[in-house]
Formats: sequence, C-alpha cells, structure tokens
Amino acid sequence: RRKGFPEIIFGEGKSREHLLGIFERLMRFHKKVVATRVDQEKASYLTANLKERYPTEHFEYRNDCNIFYWISHDYVEIKKPGYIAVVSAGTSDFSVAEEAAVTAELLGCEVKRIYDVGVAGIHRLLDKIEMIERSRVVIVVAGMEGALASVVGGLVSKPVIAVPTSVGYGANFRGLSALLTMLNSCASGVSVVNIDNGFGAGYYAATIMAVIEQAIAEAKALGREEK
Amino acid sequence: RRKGFPEIIFGEGKSREHLLGIFERLMRFHKKVVATRVDQEKASYLTANLKERYPTEHFEYRNDCNIFYWISHDYVEIKKPGYIAVVSAGTSDFSVAEEAAVTAELLGCEVKRIYDVGVAGIHRLLDKIEMIERSRVVIVVAGMEGALASVVGGLVSKPVIAVPTSVGYGANFRGLSALLTMLNSCASGVSVVNIDNGFGAGYYAATIMAVIEQAIAEAKALGREEK
Amino acid sequence: RRKGFPEIIFGEGKSREHLLGIFERLMRFHKKVVATRVDQEKASYLTANLKERYPTEHFEYRNDCNIFYWISHDYVEIKKPGYIAVVSAGTSDFSVAEEAAVTAELLGCEVKRIYDVGVAGIHRLLDKIEMIERSRVVIVVAGMEGALASVVGGLVSKPVIAVPTSVGYGANFRGLSALLTMLNSCASGVSVVNIDNGFGAGYYAATIMAVIEQAIAEAKALGREEK
Amino acid sequence: RRKGFPEIIFGEGKSREHLLGIFERLMRFHKKVVATRVDQEKASYLTANLKERYPTEHFEYRNDCNIFYWISHDYVEIKKPGYIAVVSAGTSDFSVAEEAAVTAELLGCEVKRIYDVGVAGIHRLLDKIEMIERSRVVIVVAGMEGALASVVGGLVSKPVIAVPTSVGYGANFRGLSALLTMLNSCASGVSVVNIDNGFGAGYYAATIMAVIEQAIAEAKALGREEK
Amino acid sequence: RRKGFPEIIFGEGKSREHLLGIFERLMRFHKKVVATRVDQEKASYLTANLKERYPTEHFEYRNDCNIFYWISHDYVEIKKPGYIAVVSAGTSDFSVAEEAAVTAELLGCEVKRIYDVGVAGIHRLLDKIEMIERSRVVIVVAGMEGALASVVGGLVSKPVIAVPTSVGYGANFRGLSALLTMLNSCASGVSVVNIDNGFGAGYYAATIMAVIEQAIAEAKALGREEK
Amino acid sequence: RRKGFPEIIFGEGKSREHLLGIFERLMRFHKKVVATRVDQEKASYLTANLKERYPTEHFEYRNDCNIFYWISHDYVEIKKPGYIAVVSAGTSDFSVAEEAAVTAELLGCEVKRIYDVGVAGIHRLLDKIEMIERSRVVIVVAGMEGALASVVGGLVSKPVIAVPTSVGYGANFRGLSALLTMLNSCASGVSVVNIDNGFGAGYYAATIMAVIEQAIAEAKALGREEK
Amino acid sequence: RRKGFPEIIFGEGKSREHLLGIFERLMRFHKKVVATRVDQEKASYLTANLKERYPTEHFEYRNDCNIFYWISHDYVEIKKPGYIAVVSAGTSDFSVAEEAAVTAELLGCEVKRIYDVGVAGIHRLLDKIEMIERSRVVIVVAGMEGALASVVGGLVSKPVIAVPTSVGYGANFRGLSALLTMLNSCASGVSVVNIDNGFGAGYYAATIMAVIEQAIAEAKALGREEK
Amino acid sequence: RRKGFPEIIFGEGKSREHLLGIFERLMRFHKKVVATRVDQEKASYLTANLKERYPTEHFEYRNDCNIFYWISHDYVEIKKPGYIAVVSAGTSDFSVAEEAAVTAELLGCEVKRIYDVGVAGIHRLLDKIEMIERSRVVIVVAGMEGALASVVGGLVSKPVIAVPTSVGYGANFRGLSALLTMLNSCASGVSVVNIDNGFGAGYYAATIMAVIEQAIAEAKALGREEK
Ligand SMILES: Nc1ncnc2c1ncn2[C@@H]1O[C@H](COP(=O)(O)O)[C@@H](O)[C@H]1O
Ligand SMILES: Nc1ncnc2c1ncn2[C@@H]1O[C@H](COP(=O)(O)O)[C@@H](O)[C@H]1O
Ligand SMILES: Nc1ncnc2c1ncn2[C@@H]1O[C@H](COP(=O)(O)O)[C@@H](O)[C@H]1O
Ligand SMILES: Nc1ncnc2c1ncn2[C@@H]1O[C@H](COP(=O)(O)O)[C@@H](O)[C@H]1O
Ligand SMILES: [Mg+2]
Ligand SMILES: [Mg+2]
Ligand SMILES: [Mg+2]
Ligand SMILES: [Mg+2]
Ligand SMILES: [Mg+2]
Ligand SMILES: [Mg+2]
Ligand SMILES: [Mg+2]
Ligand SMILES: [Mg+2]
Repeated sequence: RRKGFPEIIFGEGKSREHLLGIFERLMRFHKKVVATRVDQEKASYLTANLKERYPTEHFEYRNDCNIFYWISHDYVEIKKPGYIAVVSAGTSDFSVAEEAAVTAELLGCEVKRIYDVGVAGIHRLLDKIEMIERSRVVIVVAGMEGALASVVGGLVSKPVIAVPTSVGYGANFRGLSALLTMLNSCASGVSVVNIDNGFGAGYYAATIMAVIEQAIAEAKALGREEK
Repeated sequence: RRKGFPEIIFGEGKSREHLLGIFERLMRFHKKVVATRVDQEKASYLTANLKERYPTEHFEYRNDCNIFYWISHDYVEIKKPGYIAVVSAGTSDFSVAEEAAVTAELLGCEVKRIYDVGVAGIHRLLDKIEMIERSRVVIVVAGMEGALASVVGGLVSKPVIAVPTSVGYGANFRGLSALLTMLNSCASGVSVVNIDNGFGAGYYAATIMAVIEQAIAEAKALGREEK
Repeated sequence: RRKGFPEIIFGEGKSREHLLGIFERLMRFHKKVVATRVDQEKASYLTANLKERYPTEHFEYRNDCNIFYWISHDYVEIKKPGYIAVVSAGTSDFSVAEEAAVTAELLGCEVKRIYDVGVAGIHRLLDKIEMIERSRVVIVVAGMEGALASVVGGLVSKPVIAVPTSVGYGANFRGLSALLTMLNSCASGVSVVNIDNGFGAGYYAATIMAVIEQAIAEAKALGREEK
Repeated sequence: RRKGFPEIIFGEGKSREHLLGIFERLMRFHKKVVATRVDQEKASYLTANLKERYPTEHFEYRNDCNIFYWISHDYVEIKKPGYIAVVSAGTSDFSVAEEAAVTAELLGCEVKRIYDVGVAGIHRLLDKIEMIERSRVVIVVAGMEGALASVVGGLVSKPVIAVPTSVGYGANFRGLSALLTMLNSCASGVSVVNIDNGFGAGYYAATIMAVIEQAIAEAKALGREEK
Repeated sequence: RRKGFPEIIFGEGKSREHLLGIFERLMRFHKKVVATRVDQEKASYLTANLKERYPTEHFEYRNDCNIFYWISHDYVEIKKPGYIAVVSAGTSDFSVAEEAAVTAELLGCEVKRIYDVGVAGIHRLLDKIEMIERSRVVIVVAGMEGALASVVGGLVSKPVIAVPTSVGYGANFRGLSALLTMLNSCASGVSVVNIDNGFGAGYYAATIMAVIEQAIAEAKALGREEK
Repeated sequence: RRKGFPEIIFGEGKSREHLLGIFERLMRFHKKVVATRVDQEKASYLTANLKERYPTEHFEYRNDCNIFYWISHDYVEIKKPGYIAVVSAGTSDFSVAEEAAVTAELLGCEVKRIYDVGVAGIHRLLDKIEMIERSRVVIVVAGMEGALASVVGGLVSKPVIAVPTSVGYGANFRGLSALLTMLNSCASGVSVVNIDNGFGAGYYAATIMAVIEQAIAEAKALGREEK
Repeated sequence: RRKGFPEIIFGEGKSREHLLGIFERLMRFHKKVVATRVDQEKASYLTANLKERYPTEHFEYRNDCNIFYWISHDYVEIKKPGYIAVVSAGTSDFSVAEEAAVTAELLGCEVKRIYDVGVAGIHRLLDKIEMIERSRVVIVVAGMEGALASVVGGLVSKPVIAVPTSVGYGANFRGLSALLTMLNSCASGVSVVNIDNGFGAGYYAATIMAVIEQAIAEAKALGREEK
Repeated sequence: RRKGFPEIIFGEGKSREHLLGIFERLMRFHKKVVATRVDQEKASYLTANLKERYPTEHFEYRNDCNIFYWISHDYVEIKKPGYIAVVSAGTSDFSVAEEAAVTAELLGCEVKRIYDVGVAGIHRLLDKIEMIERSRVVIVVAGMEGALASVVGGLVSKPVIAVPTSVGYGANFRGLSALLTMLNSCASGVSVVNIDNGFGAGYYAATIMAVIEQAIAEAKALGREEK
C-alpha cells in the first residue's frame, strides 16, 4: 500500500461483525477508512453501530457502487493538479464505473465522468475526446464486447486502464468476452484489470497520479537546488 | 445451394488427385467452377493438368486467398445493381478479406474493398463510412479484438456480416477473442460466421444480393401486371 | 439504428424507474417505442404509470417473450411485400423464437412462424420447407445441439440467421454447444447471432428486409427514369 | 477384451521396434493380430520384417485408415447374420469412417458403408435410410458441426454410435464442436465415443453384434431344451 | 422412436398446464405414457388433474428420479429374456442411476441394480462382476472423476453405456471431469451419453435390447424356414 | 500514437518485402523507426537492403528480442529523469523482458533490468526491492504461475505492469495460468497486458513516463507564471 | 482408508435422514465418527437426534468449517510427535483452512495455524517462516491468484500440499485461477488437491504423518533387533 | 531447495551453451548435478564438452526420460530405508514415469517400478498391490482418462502423488482429462502435480522421504536422550 493512501477493506465475504471490527480498528490509526463491496444490509449495520459509538463523525455509503467510508472531520485533503477520466459504455456498466471513480476520489484524485459513450453510437464519444485527452490517466469501463477500450486507446495518447464488466449474456461468459477483447486491443497504451474490478482500476489510476505528484515534487526540489 | 450459383469445392483436406477429379466432373455440367482453400502446390497441379486437357480454357489462381477457378469462355455474367462493401482491420486480415471478396465476385456480385481501417486509427474508417453505407451488405473482417464490427455496425444501417480472424497471439486463442467480441456486439444488425471463414461471409452476402434481385424481379412483374 | 426503425430499449439490468423515464422520453419524439427483456413486474409498473399519464394510448406486453411496446394511435404502418420465416426446434425454444418474431413485426415486417420442427422428427420440417423457401429471410432458433440450422441451411437458398438457445443441460454449457454447431455449419448461407438473442435475429432480418425495400424503390425510380 | 476377439495393438506413440516385438509375440498365441494408428513408415518396417520371418504368411496394410493386420492362413471366419451401417458426412471424414468399418470387419462383422451423406444435402441421406434402418447397429461419423448424428438418430430405431471427427477449423476447436453436438443430440438412441475414435466405434458395434449372437445362441439352446 | 416404445415426454422447461395437455393427448392413443424431469410440484398437479378425469386409472410418480407415468390397466407387458445391469459409484449418483433404470424398465426391460460400488473400494465391485458380466448391456453411472466406467469396461465384455454425473465440486466443473474421463476411457467397449442423462442411457440400453429381441425373432423365423 | 513517439511496425505476419516497403516509407518522415517481432531471416534481409540504399545510416537488430530499428544519425534524444524497472522471473522469460525493455528505451526511457528473481527464491528479489521501489513504473515479466507480479505488487507502491509469458507446460495452457494469476492479483496496483506482449508493457510504461514529463512541464510553466 | 483412521462421511448431497442413518451405523463399530460438509440445519438435526439416543455422549459441530463429529468418551488418542502447518492467505480462505486443520486434528495430528499471511504483505509471512519450516508437512490454502503456495514452497523444504479456494471473482472462474497457479508452481515440493478441498489436504497430511510414525516404529524395531 | 539435495537444472528453453555454463558452475560447488528435459542433441553437446574438460569424471544421459547428470567419483550415497513405488498405466506413459523414478533415485531414494498396470486390465494391478502398499510413498503416472490414480488411492493407505500425462487424443485435450480425473479422485490420500511433471512427482516423493528420515533421526536422538 502506498504511503498516504487510506486503508481499503474488501467487504465481500466478510461478516458484518468482522467488517465492523476491522473498520473500527483502522479508525483508531487513520483519518480516512474505506470499505468496498459492502451491500445495503451491511452498510446499514455499519452506519448504525458506528454512529452510536462516534456520534460526531460522518459516515457515507454510496449505494450505486457499494462503497462505505469515513473521513475524519479534521482530515485535510490537498488538491492535486490534473484529473482522471472515467469513460463508460452503457448504462449497465454504471456501477463498476462508479466504483472506479469513487475509489480514485477517495484516494485524493479529481475525476471527470464521461458515461454512456458506447461504440454503437461513436459520435457521442468523439464529442468528448478532447476532454478525455486532457486527462492524465483514462479508465475505460465496458461490458458486452468491450470494444470501447480499443477505440479510446486509439484516439488518446494517455495510459488507458481497461475494466471489462460482466454485463451481457450468452457468449459473453460473464465478462470473458470483454476481457479477451481488452487484452487483445490493437491500440497500444491499454492495460487491463480483472472483470468488474472498478476498485482496481481506480486504485491503479491513483497510483499513477501519485507517481506524477512525486515526480513533480522531485523536479521542483531539483529546480530549487539548481538555482 | 442457390440456383444460378456456381459449384464451390472446399479444397482443404482433399488430395490433389481427388480435387482434380471433382473439378473436371463439375466442368462438364457447369460454366463456372470454383475451389477454395487450394494451396500453391495443389493449384500448380490443377493448372498443369487442366491446361493439358482443356488448352483453350482459362484457369485462374488467386494466391493471396487460395481460390482457384474456371469460367467458361462462353459464360456471360449479367451485371446486377448494388455492391457489397468488404471492410478489413489490419494488413494481416488481408487474405481472409480477399477470400470473402473474391467469393462474392465469383457469385456475380460487385465488391468494393475498404481495407486497413482498424479501430486503432478510427478516422481512416470515418472517412470511408459513406461509401460503406451506400452498399447493400457489409462484410467486416477483423482479428485481434475484432472491435471493428461493432464500430461499423453502429455507424451504418446495412446488414453487417462479421468475420473474426485468427490473427493475434496470447489471449487471442486463435480467433476466439474476435469471435466472442462479434457475437456480443452492442451494435444491432451484426451477424457472425466462423473464424477465418471469408468464404462463408462472401457466400452469405451473395445470398442476400440474390434475394434482393429476386425481390426486384417480383416487384417489376407485379408492376407490369398492375398496369 | 436504421432510419424509420423505432427506438428499442434493452430492458435487462435497468431499474423500472429508469426504464419508465427512457420510455416516456422516447414517446415524445417517436410514434412507436419498444422495450425488450422486460419482466412481468416491470411491465406492470410501466403499464400502470403510462396508462395514468396517457390514458388514451394503448400499451402492449407480450409476456411470452418479455417485449413491451407502444404504438401511437395515429401511427400508420405501410405494408411491405415478402415475409420472414421464423423456424424453431422445440417447445422450449418458443420464447426466443417469439422474441425474434415480435421484434421483426414491430420493425414492420410480416412473419410466418414454423415452430416445433426439430431434426429428431425431420419429416415435419420437410413438410414445411416450401413455405420456408418462399420467404425472403429465415430465422432458425434451436437449442440442445442446434442441428436444425444446418439442415434448414442445406434445404433452402435464402439467407439463414441462426439463433442458438441456452436450452439443454450437461455438456450443453448454456448454449455453447448449439452456438459452436451453428458457427461450424456445413451448409452455406448461415450466419449466427449471440445465444438467446432473438432480438438480434429479428432486427437483422428486418435490416435485410429494409435493404430489399430500398433496392426495389431504387429500381423503380431507375425504371421511371429510363422510361 | 471379449473372448474370441483378436488382440488389437494401439500403434500410436510406440516405436516401430516395440510394435514389431508386440506384434510377433501376439502372433504366437493368436490367429489374427491387428494394430491401429500405424503410419506408412511403421507399416513398411513391419511388413519387411514380418515377411522375412514368416514368408508364407500374408500381412495387410490399409493406408486409408492406418490399420495393419495379419490373419493366419488357417484362420476360419464364421459368418454371422446382420450388418453394421457406417454412415459418414463428408469426404474428409473418410479415414475415421474406414477405421470404424475395418475394425468391425476384423472383429468378424459385416459392414455396409453409406458415405458422403452430410446434412447439407439431406436428400442423399433420405435415399439410403431404409438400408440404414435394416442394419443392427449404426455408426455415424461426422466432423464440422456433427449434425448428422441427430438426423440419423431421429430417422432410425437402431442404436447409433456417434463419432465426432476433428475435421473443421476455427470455432470447431479440433472436434469439440461435433463432440458437444453429439452429446446433446435431441434424438434418443445416440451414444458417443472420443473424437476421431473410429476404432472405438467399430469395437463397440462389434461388441453389440457379439451380444446379439450370444443371445441368439442362448435362445436356440433354450428352444432345443423346451422341445 | 422405436415402434412399440411408449411416448416419453421431457418435462423440464414445460409449464404444468402444457405438460398435462400433452400427457392427456398421448393417453388417447397409447397404453403407456412417461414423462421425465417432472418435479414434485408438477407431479402433484398432474396426479390431481389426471385422477379427477380418469378415476379408474393408476398414475405413478417416482420422486427419487422425477419420472411420472401411466400404464393403462389393460396393458400387457411381454417378458423378454436377458437383463440390463445398472452400476453406480456413490450414493449421490443414485438419482441419475434410477432415471436410467426406471426408463429401461418402462421400455419393457429387466434391470439389475448394482449400486455404491465406486472405485475407491474396488473389492465391492469385484464381488459383483459376475452378475454384471451376465447382463446384456451395462450402464455405468459415476460422478466425481468417473473412473468406474473404465474399470467396469476393462472387466466385462458387454457394451458399456457410461453416464457422467454432475456430482462433485471444484475442478469437477459440473460433470466435465467425469465426461472427459469416460470419453477417454482406456477400456474398449465404452460409449458415453450427456452429463446426468440417465434417461438417454436407459433408452439406449433398451434400444440394444430391442435389436437383440428382433434378431432372435429373425433367427427363429429363419430356423423355422430352414426346417 | 503519442506525439514524439517513433513509428513502431508489428513485423509478425508481414512478408519481408512488405516490411521493407513500410520501413523505408517511414524513414522518409521520421528520425527513428522500429519494427518488433522481426525474425533473424527478415532482419538479415532488411539490413542487407537498407544498408545498400542508405550506406551511411546505422541499422540495429536485437536478436534476443527480435526488434529491428533505425535511429537517424542526426537524431537527438533528450534525457528524461526517472527510470522504469523491468523485473523478470526466470531465464526463459528473458526474451519477453527484453522486448519490454528495448521498446521502452527506444521510446526514450531509461530502464533498469532486474532479472532472474523468481518467487521460488524470494530473497534474491528482496535484495533488489529498493531499486525497484525507486523507479517510476515497474514491469513484471513472469511465466509458469506468474506469482511474481503479486509479490512485487505487494512490496512496492509504484504502478506495476504485469506481462504473463507462455513459458511453461501442461496445465499452463500457453500462458493462461500466468494471465489468470496476474488478473486476480491480491496486490493492488497491478494491471495486465496480453500474454508475451513485452512490447505492450514497454509502450505502456513509456506512456506513463510521458505523462509524468508533461505534468512536470506544466507544473514548471505554472510555477513560472505564478512567479 | 488407512487403518486406525476414523470413518469420514461426505455430508454434501445426502439428506439429513440418510446422514443420521450412516452416522449411527458407524458409531456401532468405531470410537470416532466424522462427517464433513454438514450445514447448520443438518447439524442441528443430527445433534438433536443423536443426543436423544446417546444422552451420555458428546457431539461437536464446527460451524466455521461445517464438520460434525463424535469421539467416544472412552476413546484414547495417542500423542504423536511433530506437527502440520496450515498456512492461509486471506480471511476469506478461513473456512477451507479450518476444514483442513480440523480434519487433520481428528485424524490424530497436531496442527499449527498460520493464517492471514497472503503475499500482498509478504513480511508477515517471512516472520512465520521458521515455524512453518519446523513442521513435518505444510498445507497452504489460498484463493484469488494462489501465489502463496509458490512463495511458501520456495521458502521451506517440507512437502507442501496446496489447496486452491474458490475465493475471488471475475477471471478467477471459481478457483480455476488459483488451481492453475498451484499446478504450475515454479517451486519444487508442491502438490495440489481439488478446489476448496480442505478435507483432502488434511487427510493427505495425516497420511504422511502416519507413514512417518510407521517408519519410526520400524526403525525402532530394527534398532532393538540390532541391539 | 532441501539441504543435501543436489542442484537440478530445468533444461527446457535454455540454449546448449547456457546449459553448459550453468552445469559447470554448479559442478564447482556440488558433488552431484542434474539437468532434466535435456534432448539428445543438447546431451551430446554437454557430454562432449564436459568430457573434454573433466576427462576423469563420468557423465550419464538417460535418453528415455531426458535426464543428464553427473555424480562426482568421490560422492558417497548413504542408503536410506524404505522405497518409493512408481506405478504407471500404459507403455506410452513410460517416459514420464522414468522421469519421476530417476529424479527420486538421484535424490537418494530407492525406487520400485510397477509399470503397465492400467485399469483396463485391473488384475495385473491387483497382483502388485502388496508391493505398492509396502512402499512409503506412491507415484501414479497415467494418461488418457487417468483412472489409475483413484484405483490405487482406494487400494493403498500410503500417500499417492498422481501425475497426469498428455498421452491420448481428441477429448483428452493434452492431458486435461487425466488432470481433472486426478483432482476429483473419489479416493482420499491423492494429490496431484502438473501434466507430464514426472520430475515434480519424483522430487515431492523424495521430500517426503527426507522428512521421514529426519523424523527418524529426531526420534532416535530423543530415544538416546531419554535413556
Ligand atoms: N434483447 C436485446 N438484446 C441485445 N440488444 C438489444 C436488445 N434489446 C435492445 N437492444 C439494443 O440495445 C440498444 C439499446 O440499449 P440501451 O441504450 O441500453 O437501452 C439498442 O441498440 C437496441 O438495438
Ligand atoms: N485407435 C485406437 N484408439 C483407442 N484405443 C485403441 C486403438 N487401437 C487399439 N486400442 C486399444 O488399445 C489397447 C491396447 O493398447 P496397447 O497395450 O497400448 O497396445 C486395447 O485395449 C485396444 O482395444
Ligand atoms: N510486438 C507487438 N505486439 C503488439 N502490438 C505491436 C507490436 N509491435 C508493434 N505493435 C503495434 O502495432 C501497430 C502497427 O501495426 P502494423 O500497422 O501492422 O505494423 C502499432 O500500433 C504498434 O503500436
Ligand atoms: N469434504 C470432503 N471432500 C472430499 N471427500 C470427502 C470429504 N469428506 C469425506 N470425504 C470422503 O468421502 C468418502 C465417503 O463418501 P461417502 O461414502 O459418500 O460418505 C470417504 O472416502 C471420505 O474420505
Ligand atoms: Mg493510445
Ligand atoms: Mg447498424
Ligand atoms: Mg442454404
Ligand atoms: Mg433413433
Ligand atoms: Mg469391456
Ligand atoms: Mg503495490
Ligand atoms: Mg520447497
Ligand atoms: Mg488411499
């Protein structure tokens, strides 16, 4: 885990009691704690219990992407320059795209969302291409055949993180189709994370943003030295 | 087999002697005979033997797509209106695209080739989109991730026949990637044939062209009656 | 999307509120709106809400294939010549076959249904073959081993759109068996859409019908000019 | 191994010296020895060496199905009533069909061959159906999509042994397509052996013929007793 | 379907009303009607409705293998000599084994059940091997790794019909493991039906029994003639 | 393609004449031209022909990773701060690792190679971990089970690009094993490219380096403005 | 089954009545009876019924790994030297790890648990490596990418039994990813059992412990003889 | 690597020069060096070069399993009690079985070979079962359907290491069939290594033998202390 990054708990497959225990423990040592893959039921349980114990703190649940988090009231986020573009194909990919976007935001990055620009209507995408190109990293979320990653990869020069989703049916084989498409992308500058792994993409993008920030700091330090 | 269509022999897996035998037999009853998947070696054998026996006839071999054929000197092709657009992604898909194009031509159709317009450089494709839309049927040939079929399918209103090719490596799994992409196409109006089956796509397109021709003939007959 | 074709919403994975929103918005600009993959529960919700707001309009739900649609009372359908044959193998494929048939009808085509003619009793199919041959396009819907597509493809000269269904068990692997069968069809003139994608087949057939219609119109125009 | 059946050696993966050794050893104890999957080169080696040592014996090699065998000059075959029908789809399946037919013949059965009756031209099959029905067991050999097994299974009442072949390309996946088709056959009375396993089908058919023969013998014995 | 065999309905995927309709229709023309894959709920519905309409007839439901059937009170079964051995590996394969056994019985065959003789305790199997060898056809039902088919196939000379079951977990992949094992059996005389297809195995065995019976009848006729 | 990046030709599947043609054409408009997947034979052909025509230019062939390139004698590379770490598991992964490293170098990046640090001897890796952490991007190349990506991902905070290789046998399935491992990595900050796609990883890393450089430039510009 | 080992019933797929029947029967002949894969509901039923009939006996249910067992009050366990190390990656693998540990304990072995030492934080594992090395056999339980088995295998010299778990999503394919990883382990001394088969690993480890014990006994006997 | 074990080089994919280099380097620090997967051509090269440099040393090549090794003339092997049983199914599995056996021998273990005891003729296996049971560890090598592992596992109480081989064709899928069989073994006490990984099995068995030896040593030490 990168220094300065909050702790992130993977909520799937953990009981709500277990989750609460880990969450509370982390609150003691950090100012921001995040849990992904938290369903509605677990979220209510966490909120109820945590609110009782920390009545002055604020807990947030994003039910569109199942992320639960706490940011301490005295946490100060330092704004960093540059943004991540999160591009998604269809309305059904929304939840994975949000998982990526919210993860990146919680890791301190600015995100611009460009949703519902699937390749079946490519002109909507072309209209947004400049905004995507001006980003520092691009996340492309697409299910069904996942062609969007190749098209975006071909149009922009920034690193593209492709997230295949399990949206589709039949010969989609729960995301395998989009996964293979993205791995075989004929456009250079595309790498891939696991099916439905919005979190992984958001985290990866934030890692790149952090390297950029660090490089700028070093460059500035060097600049000062050189003066 | 459609009436009026020439006999087409599948050359793969047949010995050259066997091939020659079938070819000659068909020549007795038809004015056009075609054999696909004929390699260089078999083609030379066929040419040598057939030339000897039919010195006044012309035999042609297309070594870029392995099609061998004979059209009788007294065969008259009737020109039909409308054309098929054969669109292909990369230079490596060339041979499958040609198999489709030549097959369709030998079945009496006009073909326009729009090659090397892969999605990694989408503007080359956009420049040609009008010519594609003006066709009656579109064949899209693409390997690697096969995204071209979705993009073309989204841009034109004509029926698209998608041909996945086995071009690629690694997680391409010999064309499986492009095949799944095309079957899951988010654009409507796309149907798929087997991996590398250029012949099947050309034949299918010609079948649609033949239905159109027949429908026009019926409409005209009806028109005359109504008068 | 083809000009003149109604808007078609993919209902799966959309909430009922979301669906209603899209449906209403499209009603404002079109005279026919269609939604596929709408389950019973969503259909009731749509009907109740839409009836309330548009009491004079008629909304229809086909619960055998999960299609919901509205045709404006002042919509005029122009009858086009020729029909699509929808051929299906077993009673379990019924719902996918209906999705294909109803989609094509909503796109303005005439459809003839030839159901329950699986290859295990091939004589029932042979009895209907003339009616199938007289169509302009054939849709073949079959699960289990999907052999029907090859048999029909071998018997008729019209373009065949094969729809594998997920009907079966064991080594059927949710439709994979029928899908592979259809892709490998030894009969020419067969193309394939995704497993259970009745909508796609109906849409594809309608696309071919539209091309035919347009070609006839062009031929007539040319005829007039020539006179 | 059934009593009375000759020894059958699986030649694949054995060196020619090893093969010769086993073959000779078996000749000492039997009057018929058979080796399958023997390529041309091994066959020549076997013939040369065996001829030298047993100059008065006759050795036969069937190069169309790679079976090598010896039948002692004093071996007497007892003719049994009834025959096996070996039905095959295309010319490329010939070699597997022959492996089945020759195996069954070497196990003492009469075989009728009905070749080149693929489903793409179903009328050729229908012409032969009576001859197939009059058999005692049917072997169906088919590659590509393997639909022939279902069609034959639906038309005849005899047990059908289906042999998928690896003939095909692309989404055929070396015979997987035909294998799945046959396992999912909608016609009852079809069982399946391994891809390209003509030997297994011939052996299985001969096993059924042997059971029949034995049952007849028992019935006759019983008849005699009862008298 | 073989002459003399009852009608067999595949109950899966049919609504109870539909099932009842088909069942009743068949009762009008036959003296025995069978439906497989009928769950408890459908069976109760069928019994209730059929009992009401045909109060003097007897309807039976085998809830261990989900077969529902009716045999007319005036149906006379002719006892045929010889039996089918149904061999199964573990207690979890019981239901598929019973589907095979009951199917064969309903097709007029005698069945001997040899259950729970998996290869993990091979001596239990060896104790029964004589009884298996004395049968005319053997059905082997096994899940997990399906090794039982090879072992039985190696020990007996009768045709073995192998039924892989989906019993198992992990790398079993819902029966794929046992299916592949059985297709690759190193023992000759083994053929395979679909995963969990007890019905298919019972039907296939009955088909072989019918051929035997017919061959005996022919032999006797011939015997009479010769006298 | 990123502005400032050289043209990169994919040499696989192109004839040597075709390759030469493209290479020469690009030389007219650029100062650096690169071709990957060029085998020894093609490389000799390119060298011979290009040397003849451009006797004063220098052409280089890296036969350990099959990359052929030309850098114009008057090309000036601007040194950029920071480096890419290329980490590889075994000696058999060497060639893919070099493809990544050389690609990145040709795109103007500094590369540090940390080879032969597979997880079977984890201490060799631990010894190098500081050097890896000090990089800006990490490329991990590993075949067999591909576990190295997870281990490195867990140890460093920099973005990791994982390249599965097809090194291995048996249940490796030509790289599928390592590919799945890397996609499922339990360590965050790992993304994946296609099997054996060293080029893709090198290109991706260079893309990130370019974004960093651009961000520094912008930061400096901003710094100047602010002053 | 090894002499001295208790009877172990596989509870999955057995009805609770069936389970009770087997359990009671075994109690009559043994002093320890174990059933795995017993869910909460079946466990309550077993406890209730067994307690009623054997009020003085103690029955135990481990609901974290679904094992139910009985050890007779007069059973005496002989302590054996040496222990098995059960190492697991994440908290989600807990239940499979416990199945392994409890199985081994019930087979009379001492077990040390080293849990939650996944490769993403390799230092926690390194801290425990000495305790693992001092064991006699190591069981490694890991899901997702399963890399832990390779890392442990590389660090210790003891035989490692790897258990892939189905923990994960997307391209994990229900444990396939971890399974392939473990089979391809680049570290020697690793063997694999089925996905989620904690029981199998525990049993295997106990088998090795028993061989050790027996070898020691033999060595001692020999020692005594030699004296 | 276990202390006292020789260095073992994996020869596949290494050039002969590279191999020679590693081999020589290891010779300087060890008294035994082994290389597996060394083909005939590399072996000759190694022998020639090593003989020249070390004329007094002996180098051995086992061409039936492709293992090349050197044991220093002054190396003293300490005989350990107990043996490993290597059991194999068919003659085609010979080479993998030998890889296992020779590996174990080179690691200082005694090996008994029980070859050609496939399940198709189970009595040959039953004759040898006592010898297998008296071993300390059993290696079972089998291709095709791999059933031998389950049968042996059921008959003996010793740990069984199963090695699937790629011997077979069709639905064998290069060893997948045997691999799945072995992973799903219904017999307890079976673990599995990669397809064709004779080396891995031999190494694993030797690891168990080493643990046994160490345990005996500890027990003796303890015995002495206690006295
Ligand atoms: N059942 C269906 N299967 C696949 N595509 C569909 C289906 N129904 C509608 N569509 C397509 O889905 C698109 C609309 O998707 P959406 O914007 O998600 O409603 C249109 O292009 C339709 O042609
Ligand atoms: N082509 C074949 N495919 C599968 N099994 C065969 C074939 N030919 C012979 N066999 C069987 O292989 C066994 C002999 O194998 P082997 O001992 O290796 O010669 C006998 O059981 C034969 O029935
Ligand atoms: N080894 C490689 N693997 C994948 N893509 C490559 C490789 N080498 C070059 N490329 C890409 O291939 C494209 C050029 O393909 P082509 O036009 O066929 O030469 C460019 O986009 C390159 O970025
Ligand atoms: N969880 C488990 N997974 C696999 N095999 C098991 C398991 N529990 C028990 N067994 C084995 O299953 C066999 C008993 O199966 P059964 O006769 O169906 O109870 C014994 O050989 C046990 O060793
Ligand atoms: Mg790009
Ligand atoms: Mg379109
Ligand atoms: Mg046709
Ligand atoms: Mg039949
Ligand atoms: Mg047998
Ligand atoms: Mg990291
Ligand atoms: Mg180790
Ligand atoms: Mg055992």
